[in-house]
Amino acid sequence: MSKAQPGDELVFLPLGGSGEIGMNLNAYGYGPPDTRKWIIVDIGVTFGREEMAPGVEIVLPDPQYLEEERDNIIAIVLTHAHEDHIGALAWLWPRLKAPVYATPFTAALVREKLRERGLLEKVPLTVIPLKGQLTLGPFEIDFVTLTHSIPEPNGLAIRTPLGLVWHTGDWKIDPDPLIGETTDEAKLRAMAEEGVLAMVCDSTNVFVEGSTGSEAEVRERLTQVIARCTGRVAVTAFASNVARVETALQAARAVGRTPCLVGRSMHRIVAAAKGVGLLQDAPETIDEEEAGGLAPEHVLYLCTGSQGEARAALSRIARNEHRNVTLKEGDTVIFSSRVIPGNEVAIHQLYNQFLEKGVALITADEEHFIHVSGHPARDELRQMYAWARPKIAVPVHGERRHLLEHVRLAQELQIPEAIAPNNGDMIRLAPGPAKVIDEVPAGRLYVDGGVMIEAEDEALRDRKRLGEEGAINVSFAIGGKKNGIVAGPNISVRGLSMADDEEFEIAIDDLERAAEAAFSKLNHSDRKDDDQVEAAVVRGVRKAAEKLFGKRPLVDVSVLRI
Amino acid sequence: MSKAQPGDELVFLPLGGSGEIGMNLNAYGYGPPDTRKWIIVDIGVTFGREEMAPGVEIVLPDPQYLEEERDNIIAIVLTHAHEDHIGALAWLWPRLKAPVYATPFTAALVREKLRERGLLEKVPLTVIPLKGQLTLGPFEIDFVTLTHSIPEPNGLAIRTPLGLVWHTGDWKIDPDPLIGETTDEAKLRAMAEEGVLAMVCDSTNVFVEGSTGSEAEVRERLTQVIARCTGRVAVTAFASNVARVETALQAARAVGRTPCLVGRSMHRIVAAAKGVGLLQDAPETIDEEEAGGLAPEHVLYLCTGSQGEARAALSRIARNEHRNVTLKEGDTVIFSSRVIPGNEVAIHQLYNQFLEKGVALITADEEHFIHVSGHPARDELRQMYAWARPKIAVPVHGERRHLLEHVRLAQELQIPEAIAPNNGDMIRLAPGPAKVIDEVPAGRLYVDGGVMIEAEDEALRDRKRLGEEGAINVSFAIGGKKNGIVAGPNISVRGLSMADDEEFEIAIDDLERAAEAAFSKLNHSDRKDDDQVEAAVVRGVRKAAEKLFGKRPLVDVSVLRI
Repeated sequence: MSKAQPGDELVFLPLGGSGEIGMNLNAYGYGPPDTRKWIIVDIGVTFGREEMAPGVEIVLPDPQYLEEERDNIIAIVLTHAHEDHIGALAWLWPRLKAPVYATPFTAALVREKLRERGLLEKVPLTVIPLKGQLTLGPFEIDFVTLTHSIPEPNGLAIRTPLGLVWHTGDWKIDPDPLIGETTDEAKLRAMAEEGVLAMVCDSTNVFVEGSTGSEAEVRERLTQVIARCTGRVAVTAFASNVARVETALQAARAVGRTPCLVGRSMHRIVAAAKGVGLLQDAPETIDEEEAGGLAPEHVLYLCTGSQGEARAALSRIARNEHRNVTLKEGDTVIFSSRVIPGNEVAIHQLYNQFLEKGVALITADEEHFIHVSGHPARDELRQMYAWARPKIAVPVHGERRHLLEHVRLAQELQIPEAIAPNNGDMIRLAPGPAKVIDEVPAGRLYVDGGVMIEAEDEALRDRKRLGEEGAINVSFAIGGKKNGIVAGPNISVRGLSMADDEEFEIAIDDLERAAEAAFSKLNHSDRKDDDQVEAAVVRGVRKAAEKLFGKRPLVDVSVLRI
Repeated sequence: MSKAQPGDELVFLPLGGSGEIGMNLNAYGYGPPDTRKWIIVDIGVTFGREEMAPGVEIVLPDPQYLEEERDNIIAIVLTHAHEDHIGALAWLWPRLKAPVYATPFTAALVREKLRERGLLEKVPLTVIPLKGQLTLGPFEIDFVTLTHSIPEPNGLAIRTPLGLVWHTGDWKIDPDPLIGETTDEAKLRAMAEEGVLAMVCDSTNVFVEGSTGSEAEVRERLTQVIARCTGRVAVTAFASNVARVETALQAARAVGRTPCLVGRSMHRIVAAAKGVGLLQDAPETIDEEEAGGLAPEHVLYLCTGSQGEARAALSRIARNEHRNVTLKEGDTVIFSSRVIPGNEVAIHQLYNQFLEKGVALITADEEHFIHVSGHPARDELRQMYAWARPKIAVPVHGERRHLLEHVRLAQELQIPEAIAPNNGDMIRLAPGPAKVIDEVPAGRLYVDGGVMIEAEDEALRDRKRLGEEGAINVSFAIGGKKNGIVAGPNISVRGLSMADDEEFEIAIDDLERAAEAAFSKLNHSDRKDDDQVEAAVVRGVRKAAEKLFGKRPLVDVSVLRI
């Protein structure tokens, strides 16, 4: 490694995930401010449902700042394959165009995403072995094996001439992860010996005392729970937790049931896992139609939809809308999952629907260890600080309250410095004490109807208003020497109602008169100007609408010149 | 009491609250099926936010069935003053027109609601003393004092010639409720001696083991917690919990702070409480401006907004938008409240905003007994069944999962019959075993822009679509012998966007061409028919829009004839 030059700085810049859970996008910069080289670590999404943006499919971090720095970006390095870490790659890569590095399982899922967006041939994707190394300009990176709720979770030891940054990615300490190796403790101790300048660390479970528990405990418990079920059993879990999927498959075998995967992402992930050599000993699955022919006590469904997603398998089964899978009295649904905040109402609706059918439910609320989290609880965080002993704690991957609590924990643990970043804060990690030296734009982008737009786009503001307040459309034709109304006004009212149809008809007449009155007040020269006409009629109609409907609809006026 | 005649039946009909928490509306009918007399017990609302219906203010049970039975309705009896029990009265009374009965505090709040809707002079409202009695046709009703999270919670012992129904309303067993008397245990035991045919009972906390705890414990704990705060303190709680409000006021005095009420409903409820003789010994409050002049350690704010409601006091303070109240580093917000499911995200946002300012938060998660629930946990339910010993258990006031669990609990407790109703189920309680004998319409009404409409109203479906998919408006003028386009088409696109403005312009041109093409395909006679023209252009434009924007917008076409 070359030596630091005078003027060199090492900076950390989060553009997603620092202030929210999900949508992780982090960048590290090295060099003098005007010629900094960058690496990007992870590039993920959140979903519109979670953002509560109706109609929006995907939420992405806005990479505007990095786009301007494109020529200086050396690489995009991915820690693991969760959507909130890789989901934005195929969307944002055309703006960033840097080579991509990932371990085999992550690369397999990334490749599929790139293929879907027609980018497979364009994106240089290098597969790094587990525990591999990379040299990227001033950055030397070691992939460090950790444990999490997906295969191949890697932390990154990022060496620079100004010190080593330990970027944990998502992790927990699972003494028996079932798939993959345990936490590479030796490596962490060695890093500490070398000296860790900063640890950029997962904050998701900072409010949870103790430890999260192991996938091995889940395997034992889930098998017991399934063993005592009598009718059909449906287990729901995140498909990306391949160890959990394997648990369900093996539990099925242990109790004499044949497993059947239900839901697109189950099939997708299982295929990806098999492609990298996982799930080799798992029992064969059968298809939905075949499973439907088995006696209830001989089938185990493994379903998507643990969060009550309306289109996922489990919700469709609950609504009796699934083509091949039906659950009834005597059957059981096992939620090997947690309730992600914001999804409570949807999940409770699912519970109500199943219970109404007489389907029994088993959730982690009553049965401990049918689910464990993939993120470190406080004792695990303490252990990680004990191992890494960083000079600076930089909590990421959390809402503001998580990051601030993580700072407090780091202070308790005598970490010399701790700084909770906001998305867009450029933090100088060295030289000198950690400090925010700049704030760069850090907005959001939305994928809406397959089109990527800014979260501040007027269209989205209009949609919010349309959804809450409705719309009124007015059109009329103007003609003749005096520019009078020669046809119309036509009025169309959408999303507004009255208790009584007759009243509604009268209201439409009132709106018509309001439009005419607003027009008639315009002088001769204003009538020649479409903008003037539209503005006056919008004002008049909106005012009348507010009175009539108690709402503030979007009013659109169209003037046709004859 | 007269004797039962052959053919008499006693029925229970819930139209709200059986399948959801909130929006309670229950009816009891007595007599032969064709001349049944009815009493209504409670008539409440839910809020549009909870229903996730954008723009909708209030959600009401649809009283259609009872409206048809209007001439046979003897009375509307209110158990207590929570919005989910009285909030629909002023909206639905004009459809039902029955006299109303309530105890003093409830009557005070009802009067205010009636005044707002201009109904005060029209609605016959009789104030019943606590522990009062009422004879209403075949029904003899005793108001039975219980404990809950509001003053004057009453259960109703409803005697009929076919037996006594014990309608609990909302309750808990609070050994020291601070305001009002404790549970009238003697009365409950006496009822059991007499024989309870059916108990219609609160199910809210059926999944909570143990007991809920007492308001007295909250007073002690909250006072201790406030005592150790240094800067400004803001306590947030439901205003209707007058005992809790009194606790905050007295705690303020105990620690040398002057209390200040913030938020409209705090003022409203405190005034109502004082009007019925409550809060007489509570310290005087000062107004917001005066409080702003006090040293931080001398003020205690009591705020609305514990559920993260965007317009309530606490959210406005968090966003720095409150005119008179500011909280900063060193100040503390105490949540003397629980998180109602569905509000998690809004409340967490509030936490993030305060923590970002350095304001400390204290919630019931960390500090037990700064809040207790007003609904019975399982031990309290067991106690109530032990007291009342009903023949039939009828769980209400809960989602489906609560009611079904409550049935299981009743079965465990050896209650001979248990039946979980759905809204609209007419249940015959006597003679014979409890049984659903009819299903009547049980929809919802929405108050939207101050107008009451049906939940199935097309306007609301349109709004959902507008909010998710946007709108396209097309207008053009047709004229001449051949009915050709003489002006337009004008295209307006709302709520749809593209990454690039130029592309967007091109898309508008494409839509224009699609409209023209659709029109040009019509034959001469179809062009004379506005409906034909509109339908064809809507189809053409919608198809083009789906291709261009990946969305299915509402398309409105306006044809002007010249």
